[in-house]
Amino acid sequence: MINKIEGLVAAPFSPMKENGELNVSAIPAYYNFLKKNGVAGAFINGSTGEGVSQTNAERKLQAEVWAEQIKKDDSPMKLINLVGGTSYQECIDLALHSQSIGVDAIAILAPFYFKPGTAKALAEFCAKVAAAVPEMPVYFYHIPVLTGCNVSMYDFLQEADGLIPNLAGIKYTHEDFMDFLSCLSFRDGKYDMLWGRDENLLSALVLGARGGVGSTFNYAAPLYHKLIKAYNEGRVVEARQLQQLSIDMIRLLGKYGGIATGKAYMRYVGLECGEFRLPVKNMTAEAYKAFEADVRALNMEELFSKF
Amino acid sequence: MINKIEGLVAAPFSPMKENGELNVSAIPAYYNFLKKNGVAGAFINGSTGEGVSQTNAERKLQAEVWAEQIKKDDSPMKLINLVGGTSYQECIDLALHSQSIGVDAIAILAPFYFKPGTAKALAEFCAKVAAAVPEMPVYFYHIPVLTGCNVSMYDFLQEADGLIPNLAGIKYTHEDFMDFLSCLSFRDGKYDMLWGRDENLLSALVLGARGGVGSTFNYAAPLYHKLIKAYNEGRVVEARQLQQLSIDMIRLLGKYGGIATGKAYMRYVGLECGEFRLPVKNMTAEAYKAFEADVRALNMEELFSKF
Amino acid sequence: MINKIEGLVAAPFSPMKENGELNVSAIPAYYNFLKKNGVAGAFINGSTGEGVSQTNAERKLQAEVWAEQIKKDDSPMKLINLVGGTSYQECIDLALHSQSIGVDAIAILAPFYFKPGTAKALAEFCAKVAAAVPEMPVYFYHIPVLTGCNVSMYDFLQEADGLIPNLAGIKYTHEDFMDFLSCLSFRDGKYDMLWGRDENLLSALVLGARGGVGSTFNYAAPLYHKLIKAYNEGRVVEARQLQQLSIDMIRLLGKYGGIATGKAYMRYVGLECGEFRLPVKNMTAEAYKAFEADVRALNMEELFSKF
Amino acid sequence: MINKIEGLVAAPFSPMKENGELNVSAIPAYYNFLKKNGVAGAFINGSTGEGVSQTNAERKLQAEVWAEQIKKDDSPMKLINLVGGTSYQECIDLALHSQSIGVDAIAILAPFYFKPGTAKALAEFCAKVAAAVPEMPVYFYHIPVLTGCNVSMYDFLQEADGLIPNLAGIKYTHEDFMDFLSCLSFRDGKYDMLWGRDENLLSALVLGARGGVGSTFNYAAPLYHKLIKAYNEGRVVEARQLQQLSIDMIRLLGKYGGIATGKAYMRYVGLECGEFRLPVKNMTAEAYKAFEADVRALNMEELFSKF
Repeated sequence: MINKIEGLVAAPFSPMKENGELNVSAIPAYYNFLKKNGVAGAFINGSTGEGVSQTNAERKLQAEVWAEQIKKDDSPMKLINLVGGTSYQECIDLALHSQSIGVDAIAILAPFYFKPGTAKALAEFCAKVAAAVPEMPVYFYHIPVLTGCNVSMYDFLQEADGLIPNLAGIKYTHEDFMDFLSCLSFRDGKYDMLWGRDENLLSALVLGARGGVGSTFNYAAPLYHKLIKAYNEGRVVEARQLQQLSIDMIRLLGKYGGIATGKAYMRYVGLECGEFRLPVKNMTAEAYKAFEADVRALNMEELFSKF
Repeated sequence: MINKIEGLVAAPFSPMKENGELNVSAIPAYYNFLKKNGVAGAFINGSTGEGVSQTNAERKLQAEVWAEQIKKDDSPMKLINLVGGTSYQECIDLALHSQSIGVDAIAILAPFYFKPGTAKALAEFCAKVAAAVPEMPVYFYHIPVLTGCNVSMYDFLQEADGLIPNLAGIKYTHEDFMDFLSCLSFRDGKYDMLWGRDENLLSALVLGARGGVGSTFNYAAPLYHKLIKAYNEGRVVEARQLQQLSIDMIRLLGKYGGIATGKAYMRYVGLECGEFRLPVKNMTAEAYKAFEADVRALNMEELFSKF
Repeated sequence: MINKIEGLVAAPFSPMKENGELNVSAIPAYYNFLKKNGVAGAFINGSTGEGVSQTNAERKLQAEVWAEQIKKDDSPMKLINLVGGTSYQECIDLALHSQSIGVDAIAILAPFYFKPGTAKALAEFCAKVAAAVPEMPVYFYHIPVLTGCNVSMYDFLQEADGLIPNLAGIKYTHEDFMDFLSCLSFRDGKYDMLWGRDENLLSALVLGARGGVGSTFNYAAPLYHKLIKAYNEGRVVEARQLQQLSIDMIRLLGKYGGIATGKAYMRYVGLECGEFRLPVKNMTAEAYKAFEADVRALNMEELFSKF
Repeated sequence: MINKIEGLVAAPFSPMKENGELNVSAIPAYYNFLKKNGVAGAFINGSTGEGVSQTNAERKLQAEVWAEQIKKDDSPMKLINLVGGTSYQECIDLALHSQSIGVDAIAILAPFYFKPGTAKALAEFCAKVAAAVPEMPVYFYHIPVLTGCNVSMYDFLQEADGLIPNLAGIKYTHEDFMDFLSCLSFRDGKYDMLWGRDENLLSALVLGARGGVGSTFNYAAPLYHKLIKAYNEGRVVEARQLQQLSIDMIRLLGKYGGIATGKAYMRYVGLECGEFRLPVKNMTAEAYKAFEADVRALNMEELFSKF
């Protein structure tokens, strides 16, 4: 099984050309950028990476290029590839491909058209995919706000434990801390619980979370490194201030239209990733100027990732 | 453009083998069954057809076999293929394939992971796909309970009209009759509004709906033919009684676990379609027996489709 | 028991003075206005009447003045008083008062803070109130969009039938036509099902509804009288056009901020009712001018109620 | 203004007689019980106290008896009285009464029938009530799961600051830690932010919360005292274990039907409070036995409050 992941796992954006095509040639620089900023892993083809807006061929291509970078560099960075979708056969196809190219772990989403109504149904779907790659660690990616599947993860673990021998843990992108702590406590901490809400990482750290997967770790890794360090060293007031700064930064996503604002932050820190694909809405050039001014006003230049 | 569709459009189930593989060899009999029962069209790869639970290759294969049947028979039956998904590129791929094999029209879903938040964003996504097959009629398939995209269709038509020249109409699977009538009235009835809630077809007929797309038309076409005839001939009390019977029949779907119950009804009328794929839950053999007794108690044998 | 109500039951606005106090002196003119426009009943202290925004003393006072008008005039108009709330004791207090002043029927809401989770719990709450006035007809007022109680009314009737001997029927303000028809059919039409969504009255008429309770019957009764007449006489195309006009009129409520727009319509037809109380937001004087222009553009002057 | 509250504020249950009448004679013993267990305040007539299920006369009576106990004892315990409702006039009436009997602070709910759609509308409603008692500290009680008003509290503070000079803070019963920390940080910590989700108190403590208002502090105060002490003294692993124990205890509320289970816990620790009123469902005697066994199995006798 995978060792539990400590530290920051970035969920990379999918770099796009101006014409909307996938720009895999940008990935080597992206990898170096994350590495330079002390990121412990990359969770690709997820929500931030617009996996669902890509073709399966594109998802495979991205996985190949990322895997190649990491291998070439003999990097300790972990590569997790989201293979989730609504067809378990397509999930299996992507999982087998991941295995064949040396990805470290796969992640599965709850199917998001027909939504499993019970923990059992969800576990059975995941088991079907996981069984195809029995040697690979498998994460469940819990993000009910997007999948519409609101099953409690504590209930899920009770169903999945045993049924999915290669279940490694959960990327937990939801605000139910009661459920999250229950999962951390489950079978003496058997599962790797990766926190997925950057804006309240501190509230997860105090419960015992050791790592997180997030989109803002792409461009503000130093902020979170500092926050974690402050927390670990008992400087909790500083940790709160840094968490508040992360919130101020994240609040701009709401102000400028949502998830696509992340790519605007990437442009800001110097790594152009192009635009999000439809149906996600991108910022206009004019809005970008206002955004840029708002970011400067945060006065946190040294906390952004360095290109 | 397509002529407006009158009468019943069935949304076929995808026939499966016992091992869960697609069983296209059952489609010719399925086609003859629908034809014999006076069905005007087939809306394939939709919710009932588990399009999202299939691979793209399977969706194409089904479309090919259905198109072949209809062509061979020189049938007036219309074939509509749902090409919807979350990646517009995959939608386009399916749309081009549909065009190449002689499908009559395609249908597009709102993307259901990243949900368009405005009518404009939704129209732009649909336009991207529709523009790839400018000679084909395109239906928008509105089913917010599954897609999570709650944009009003009246607003959508205002954005889409002009932007999508080949927009034919909407398969409307939602209970907003204010919105539905507004769409029927839009630009003097320009768009083909196909009602998608069999359980309240009568309430749509009175507003001017001429046709519907539904799953229960697969197995109870005579019931709805009789209902429409009664309504058209002014026997509204009879029409209500038939609608109530349709409701009693549909209520068993809730009682026996949802959408998969449709395939139990198919078995009941004599056309075995196998099971739904995960994550949809299927009825046990034991439950089927109880279901069968409940169906008999409806006392409506002559209103089921004849095999 | 009450006889079933046919025709339009208006849900009167609560007239307010400029200082926000209840203006009961306006009620006699209001009563005459409804009578002149052929309204069959008044449903007071409901959502339109802001019952929940008043003190119990004010609710009683309004009921008294309305009851007095109707009695004095020996009017066939039915008076239904909403006594719903979250405390069954306060509901009972209002119910007993209603009885003592000669109100024709009371109505009960689902409690809307702690929401009954089952039809049984809802029926038990209603039974507790109804038992206090065993000689009075009792309506259940189903409006889940405001109460948050989403229990199916078909299930409710199954629990309430027998348990609440004086249950007269349901004011049904929801879009579930499957549920509505099932209630109409329940025990051979035992219960009086009053439709509560003016914007799709036609879709309820075809199912057998004979009457409705609505806010727009306050100011556009002629429109709905004409619609019902057209439907009853088989002129369904005309009925649809009138329903569309009702929708166009109702759409302005959304455009101008919601429920308070109803009082702007009252001003427009000549019966000043003042403003809604907080937390409902009222239209500015400037917005009223734009609203007035929009109403004129509907070009339906002869379909508004005559003062 | 009120000083910020540190420690545990219990939200007392309303003691009821077997016949469902309010049993104020139980309040002196209740007060002593809380005092003995080191509780810093009592938040009466709230959700736990079923304020909305009582008449206004009962709410006043309870407030009087609680105020009398505290005064008589010259106790440092703070008394906060929820005066929230849907009619601002009734809220004002309760607020003035609270003031007249020496209650320390009042709390206001978002009106929960017509729900304020914006922070401004919510602030205006609260201001109307707060202005009636300008010398009293006022808390806003944020519990969107029950009120249906989902306005962000950070937005609310921006509107309310200045508009409501006597706003003391917020009882925050929601899981939005991003919003909560933003409120804690607002104007250098001007407002008293009382955490309202006992099951994740630890995640609030790390953000700077100093106190909480909760129902489980009624019967498990020692558990939370120990948790807070462990956290404050840097024994975070112990704090987590205690939080997990609190979760295990709270999970039984879900298992045994919800909020009424709290009164079963009170019986367990020796202070009989009777039943919840309709529409809340109470445990049967049989279920109580199973519950009792489950509670014993938690093996935390020494962490329950001592009677």
